[in-house]
Amino acid sequence: FTLSNQPLVSVALLLMITVCSCKYEPTWESIDSRPLPEWYDQAKFGIFIHWGVFSVPSFGSEWFWQKQKIKSYVDFMQKNYPPDFKYQDFAPQFTAEFFDPKEWTDIFASSGAKYIVLTTKHHEGFTLWGSENSWNWNAVDVGPKRDLVGEMAGALRANSDLRLGLYHSLFEWFNPLYEQDAANLYTTNLFPTTKTLPELYEIINKYKPELLWSDGDGDAPDKYWNSTGFLAWLYNESPVRETVVTNDRWGYGSICTHGGYYTCDDRYQPGHLLKHKWENCFSIDKGSWGYRRNAQLKDYFTIEQLVATLVETVSCGGNLLLNVGPTHDGRIAPIFEERLRQMGQWLGVNGEAIYNTTAWRAQNDSIIPGIWYTAKPQDKAIYAILLDWPPSGYVVLNEPIVSTGKTQVVLLGHKPLYWEPVKPRGLKVFLPQLSYSQMPCHWAWTLRLTGAA
Amino acid sequence: FTLSNQPLVSVALLLMITVCSCKYEPTWESIDSRPLPEWYDQAKFGIFIHWGVFSVPSFGSEWFWQKQKIKSYVDFMQKNYPPDFKYQDFAPQFTAEFFDPKEWTDIFASSGAKYIVLTTKHHEGFTLWGSENSWNWNAVDVGPKRDLVGEMAGALRANSDLRLGLYHSLFEWFNPLYEQDAANLYTTNLFPTTKTLPELYEIINKYKPELLWSDGDGDAPDKYWNSTGFLAWLYNESPVRETVVTNDRWGYGSICTHGGYYTCDDRYQPGHLLKHKWENCFSIDKGSWGYRRNAQLKDYFTIEQLVATLVETVSCGGNLLLNVGPTHDGRIAPIFEERLRQMGQWLGVNGEAIYNTTAWRAQNDSIIPGIWYTAKPQDKAIYAILLDWPPSGYVVLNEPIVSTGKTQVVLLGHKPLYWEPVKPRGLKVFLPQLSYSQMPCHWAWTLRLTGAA
Amino acid sequence: FTLSNQPLVSVALLLMITVCSCKYEPTWESIDSRPLPEWYDQAKFGIFIHWGVFSVPSFGSEWFWQKQKIKSYVDFMQKNYPPDFKYQDFAPQFTAEFFDPKEWTDIFASSGAKYIVLTTKHHEGFTLWGSENSWNWNAVDVGPKRDLVGEMAGALRANSDLRLGLYHSLFEWFNPLYEQDAANLYTTNLFPTTKTLPELYEIINKYKPELLWSDGDGDAPDKYWNSTGFLAWLYNESPVRETVVTNDRWGYGSICTHGGYYTCDDRYQPGHLLKHKWENCFSIDKGSWGYRRNAQLKDYFTIEQLVATLVETVSCGGNLLLNVGPTHDGRIAPIFEERLRQMGQWLGVNGEAIYNTTAWRAQNDSIIPGIWYTAKPQDKAIYAILLDWPPSGYVVLNEPIVSTGKTQVVLLGHKPLYWEPVKPRGLKVFLPQLSYSQMPCHWAWTLRLTGAA
Amino acid sequence: FTLSNQPLVSVALLLMITVCSCKYEPTWESIDSRPLPEWYDQAKFGIFIHWGVFSVPSFGSEWFWQKQKIKSYVDFMQKNYPPDFKYQDFAPQFTAEFFDPKEWTDIFASSGAKYIVLTTKHHEGFTLWGSENSWNWNAVDVGPKRDLVGEMAGALRANSDLRLGLYHSLFEWFNPLYEQDAANLYTTNLFPTTKTLPELYEIINKYKPELLWSDGDGDAPDKYWNSTGFLAWLYNESPVRETVVTNDRWGYGSICTHGGYYTCDDRYQPGHLLKHKWENCFSIDKGSWGYRRNAQLKDYFTIEQLVATLVETVSCGGNLLLNVGPTHDGRIAPIFEERLRQMGQWLGVNGEAIYNTTAWRAQNDSIIPGIWYTAKPQDKAIYAILLDWPPSGYVVLNEPIVSTGKTQVVLLGHKPLYWEPVKPRGLKVFLPQLSYSQMPCHWAWTLRLTGAA
Repeated sequence: FTLSNQPLVSVALLLMITVCSCKYEPTWESIDSRPLPEWYDQAKFGIFIHWGVFSVPSFGSEWFWQKQKIKSYVDFMQKNYPPDFKYQDFAPQFTAEFFDPKEWTDIFASSGAKYIVLTTKHHEGFTLWGSENSWNWNAVDVGPKRDLVGEMAGALRANSDLRLGLYHSLFEWFNPLYEQDAANLYTTNLFPTTKTLPELYEIINKYKPELLWSDGDGDAPDKYWNSTGFLAWLYNESPVRETVVTNDRWGYGSICTHGGYYTCDDRYQPGHLLKHKWENCFSIDKGSWGYRRNAQLKDYFTIEQLVATLVETVSCGGNLLLNVGPTHDGRIAPIFEERLRQMGQWLGVNGEAIYNTTAWRAQNDSIIPGIWYTAKPQDKAIYAILLDWPPSGYVVLNEPIVSTGKTQVVLLGHKPLYWEPVKPRGLKVFLPQLSYSQMPCHWAWTLRLTGAA
Repeated sequence: FTLSNQPLVSVALLLMITVCSCKYEPTWESIDSRPLPEWYDQAKFGIFIHWGVFSVPSFGSEWFWQKQKIKSYVDFMQKNYPPDFKYQDFAPQFTAEFFDPKEWTDIFASSGAKYIVLTTKHHEGFTLWGSENSWNWNAVDVGPKRDLVGEMAGALRANSDLRLGLYHSLFEWFNPLYEQDAANLYTTNLFPTTKTLPELYEIINKYKPELLWSDGDGDAPDKYWNSTGFLAWLYNESPVRETVVTNDRWGYGSICTHGGYYTCDDRYQPGHLLKHKWENCFSIDKGSWGYRRNAQLKDYFTIEQLVATLVETVSCGGNLLLNVGPTHDGRIAPIFEERLRQMGQWLGVNGEAIYNTTAWRAQNDSIIPGIWYTAKPQDKAIYAILLDWPPSGYVVLNEPIVSTGKTQVVLLGHKPLYWEPVKPRGLKVFLPQLSYSQMPCHWAWTLRLTGAA
Repeated sequence: FTLSNQPLVSVALLLMITVCSCKYEPTWESIDSRPLPEWYDQAKFGIFIHWGVFSVPSFGSEWFWQKQKIKSYVDFMQKNYPPDFKYQDFAPQFTAEFFDPKEWTDIFASSGAKYIVLTTKHHEGFTLWGSENSWNWNAVDVGPKRDLVGEMAGALRANSDLRLGLYHSLFEWFNPLYEQDAANLYTTNLFPTTKTLPELYEIINKYKPELLWSDGDGDAPDKYWNSTGFLAWLYNESPVRETVVTNDRWGYGSICTHGGYYTCDDRYQPGHLLKHKWENCFSIDKGSWGYRRNAQLKDYFTIEQLVATLVETVSCGGNLLLNVGPTHDGRIAPIFEERLRQMGQWLGVNGEAIYNTTAWRAQNDSIIPGIWYTAKPQDKAIYAILLDWPPSGYVVLNEPIVSTGKTQVVLLGHKPLYWEPVKPRGLKVFLPQLSYSQMPCHWAWTLRLTGAA
Repeated sequence: FTLSNQPLVSVALLLMITVCSCKYEPTWESIDSRPLPEWYDQAKFGIFIHWGVFSVPSFGSEWFWQKQKIKSYVDFMQKNYPPDFKYQDFAPQFTAEFFDPKEWTDIFASSGAKYIVLTTKHHEGFTLWGSENSWNWNAVDVGPKRDLVGEMAGALRANSDLRLGLYHSLFEWFNPLYEQDAANLYTTNLFPTTKTLPELYEIINKYKPELLWSDGDGDAPDKYWNSTGFLAWLYNESPVRETVVTNDRWGYGSICTHGGYYTCDDRYQPGHLLKHKWENCFSIDKGSWGYRRNAQLKDYFTIEQLVATLVETVSCGGNLLLNVGPTHDGRIAPIFEERLRQMGQWLGVNGEAIYNTTAWRAQNDSIIPGIWYTAKPQDKAIYAILLDWPPSGYVVLNEPIVSTGKTQVVLLGHKPLYWEPVKPRGLKVFLPQLSYSQMPCHWAWTLRLTGAA
């Protein structure tokens, strides 16, 4: 017989006792069978926002805390702070005094994006809303003293047609309850039951996002997180069950395999069409998702690069989730604002070739580089997007099957163009001689083909 | 028809499955039947230490947070801090840079105290050790960045014979999980199962205190707190089960009724003998337990008052737990140190009449005010403690039954005195003519009677 | 009879007793007779840097202190700081931890600028070097704890051909010594003799700038400042007497009238040729010279506007001093870096039409708007700078006198162009059909005419 | 053909042109001839207050800045502050929020002191009033944002009969103007003329102190400081010329030799009568004049020691200036308050033997130690102050010449005592048998002899 020492303290989820006409069961097979709500594929372009306590040191990257033993981070701390200053001490400086969610909405809307995704909680565990399960480690108790998620959601809905998405990290680097479960090889689940899951239910019920961007499984299995259980609730019963979209980061092995759309990797760009809907999350800052003060101009992608990324992503069936990192005091730096507004200028002319399109038969031209195709079957239109303006005065598109007298080619923002068929397939389009200021847009140009296949 | 909306998230304590020869069951009847470990009654005098985030504003009292809407507190905040500064923002300033537990131990030992009781967590919920259940709201993550409980315990044991006691508040004013349970009228127990109980088990197992000073039931019933379950474990199985002492603040209605010794009230002084062992917790600062900067000299009890309080308390069968409030930077202010060392000076002469004594037949003299009795049956000694030195040169003790030729009277610290019997009972003791510097002590004087009854 | 009460404390400059072959006397007549060192007119383009304690609040403008009673500033302070927080309290937060003068030099050099002008001391009185006359109100004693002027000067000289200019404010808004002199209607000169003049001598001797940008006379007469005395020393004896250039802000009435080159006003743009050399100091931020966090993208001039400003300024005989405001932590925000590097790209192609040029006979075309002329007599070249690319494919220049067979027209960055004479004077230049990527540059284009007059 | 470098900037005091009936000339001979105003010798007991930026670190001593390279100070800084934190950074934390000058006055008055001396500026150079010559390094611009000198002076005069004294340091450790003069071996006097002297004149005219406590000559000669010039003004023309008292620290060599009363050394206690009036400045904290957090109880003098010091000082013709160090937030710590109020209790009984007395023929008893004499010729009284209560019940005074039937002896606070003459001279006084509570006072006792010589 055995001598116990102390009572085991454990927690368990009570079984749901519900009477509902539930479509989805808590299995991947069932969860994966749900069709993706249509709005998401039509939207094509969203904005990602990484904001948190990491925005205070704003040095290196949003992984500052986790990287605290790397030399450059150690040096930064030693040079600028007292010896026992810890990451948690940054929280009171997360002041957000310039945060104006209406102004942010205006900038986001100007970019042509159709949805945003805000980090409600990154791996640091700090929640941007007043989570009851994260007492004194959230934006209402410490730092801003404001419900940043609620304010952003409210302003977005009041002032735009943008849809709200929320990012949420399952695991937390240094949460001792998570560490305890991990030490138990995930045979205990103190952390998900007292922190992760209550918070997930809370943000869905409270803010009703139409996109839930899950992240950070910590290599723990989805069973540990009870991901399918949560998703079944999300799809069956949550207030957003009709329109909510989610991604694929729900436990070890689920990425690129289970859940909603696939993210597969950060800055994921397959270069070819995928069978499953996917998203390319892509930060304007080449080296960080959170704001970092030590980024120079060369660390930001140019608008030409960003437009090319959007075009390639959409041509291959993906959505682009373009990331900005606001400052600790609540500003979107002008360099980010510039990139977003430039993107909006481009989409103002070329949005027809992006929104509501589908991938076409060919994603890019097999012969001429820098030409990407999209299609809009409902309009019987094919779009060829040129990342470079051809110096020759004409461009040859080798993929479309044209028919003289029927096929029409228009430069978006300009007017119909002359073209002639080429062998074995395709057409040669004569571009107009346009001065700099006559150009309908810069950075990339779209030819719309109708009457072609 | 459908009723439910979302899964209930709840937590439950698993049943203890233990095989042990358990003496105590989780009922008050059984718990109350445990004899009080002897050391406690013998000790008579301990030191209480209130330390926490409240030591940072150190204004008003340790209830600063809870009183934040009272005008004087509102004014204090408005005058000295930015508009959105909250109590939590004080935590990083709880620096404890001067905290030297060896030095504290030296001061405590010099006072003649036999035990200390340190607040490991007051109603603010901030733990002075690195509680895993209080992430980022504890002294290791924020502020001192040190395990204050562990350091104090270690220094105490290495440098003194003082016993360690730990104070712990069951409820927390503003913990949202507690507020949620309270809103549910304590039908849910999220808070005790995820915060209070894990912490109680942790401090007992980790620091092995011989005294556990429970406080703050929040008017919630002991069932909610599972107090008897915890105490059964404490008494049956914990590493301190042989010697641990606890008090009576374990749930609504338990105070002065159940548990270990009784506290009944703050500064409790019944003035007569109680049947049950009790303790008078008494702060040197008349208006606060935590350090407050706005205390002036007149707000501190004088050593005369403190000695009188000790004497009366012990005469009536109680222990005195004398409180000091250290500063945010880890110091025991000299005015506190002075009072403690003075107490030690007095006990150096008079300790014989305090330690290991029992209440006598009479607690104080029925005729002459300011005379308190204690007794030491093992030594066949009765002690009469005089709070005033009689100007007449003699004092009449009306309670002892004396017998000429057998009864002897000694002034502690001096020598035997002449006496003569008085009618109907008692004796007249002739005090020596002692100059100021010849006095064995100040503030109160003890006559030891042997051969009396 | 008695009259006086107390000794007068006063200070006076001792007379210089020097024996030198001084060319210049301390009179405006003499000072104004000095020819401007050649380098300045040849340089055409410099960078202005406003940095100081105002970079800490970085709200509103660098006049934050002086505007502290304006409602928006009062509100900002009340919302974010304790009630008695004063401007001086910002100084310790002027940390400059990211200040890398080599990196700044790289950015400045990339812009095509030929000199920089750094605020060594703005009207706030805080000196960016460790002035002995500004104890505890300078960047070595407080805040950065670094000699910012010295570090900038050193890096500039070690890593570039840029010349060093120093900005210096004569008066200080709130210096009590200045206020005392002002109250005395400038009949006393405590302030210039103990602060302004010692500092001016010190920065010249210590940092040897080739440009001294004086500002802020406080409407006090130049006699009060002893400006001509100082300038005589600067021109006759200072270590930079051969090459130093200064401006015209040396006392009430001197602006646009006396001293070195004229500044006349902030953002001065006369639109026609001036007889006297002048400078247009022009901030990229439309509303501030110092960094301000509340500037949005629309508050920054576009590169098109900046190029146009440079072109017009140079055509009318001026220099452009383009201003950036670094942050309190020592960074040049990417939006500024972008504008500067864009300017450098443009000058990389068109610098021939800017540097070392002189104003031409006509400043701009009399008929076609948006065409500005410069000339380089030494190369017998005339430059016509087009702010717009003509949609027609040709442009008519109405000012040059051409001669068939002799006159040649080249698009800078491209090649010779066809042209034909027009009546009564001028020529029609046929522009090439260049695609976006073939363009030698953007934002403005230069035609070089040789063999014309 | 001489090469000068740059104009000399120098400052000079203009000659006083005054028409007055000046008694004193700016020579030591004349200055020293002034009789000390009577009030000072009558007062006997004052309170010294060391308050400044050093009260913020409150570590080590008020010489913190000067000792910053000593290991314990280096360690303190490294452990608690960022690497480039400097002494000046402490200034904003000198908050004084609890400073209540009325409360201070009450404490000072309760001590029995007749005057106070407040540090208006210690060697750190930080002025406790808004000095125009110490811009941004004074208590109005930085830290308290209050005129601490003015508030103290106002409260003192409104609420007590205490006289105001001001401490002022001539030199400043790190003032660069002083350092420059020192480097010039005091042949220049930039510092005294622009800082020291204007400030001295200002505090005299503005606050009208009746005592000026000069300190810190920096080993510079009084000529450099123009001390005799200033003192001549102070004595002839200042608003306090009738009553002002000063000390002897006015330049190298003046201490204990020239000026007003002598201080000779810190904690000066000659043990015998001096011919010249002197003062013993004596800090209650054995190791510091400014508040230091690292002082423990054993570092404070006991009241017995302080009373003995007062008695010995007065018997030898001196005044005692007892020092306290307030905290950075404006409090007088209770341990200091206790000592001061205890002193007041003692003086309440024994003040007759202190105030308005003169040194007697003998300062202390030639045979019995611990007995000090004072006298009051106007009352024909001799006072013998006993630092110990004699255990024998009597005391022999060997100095007074008594006469039976004429000489009377009274224990102050009690009543006449029996005595008998002794040979060869003196008397034996029989002390009453008093219980502890009957004692008129503690710590020292006074016998008043009348009819003796």
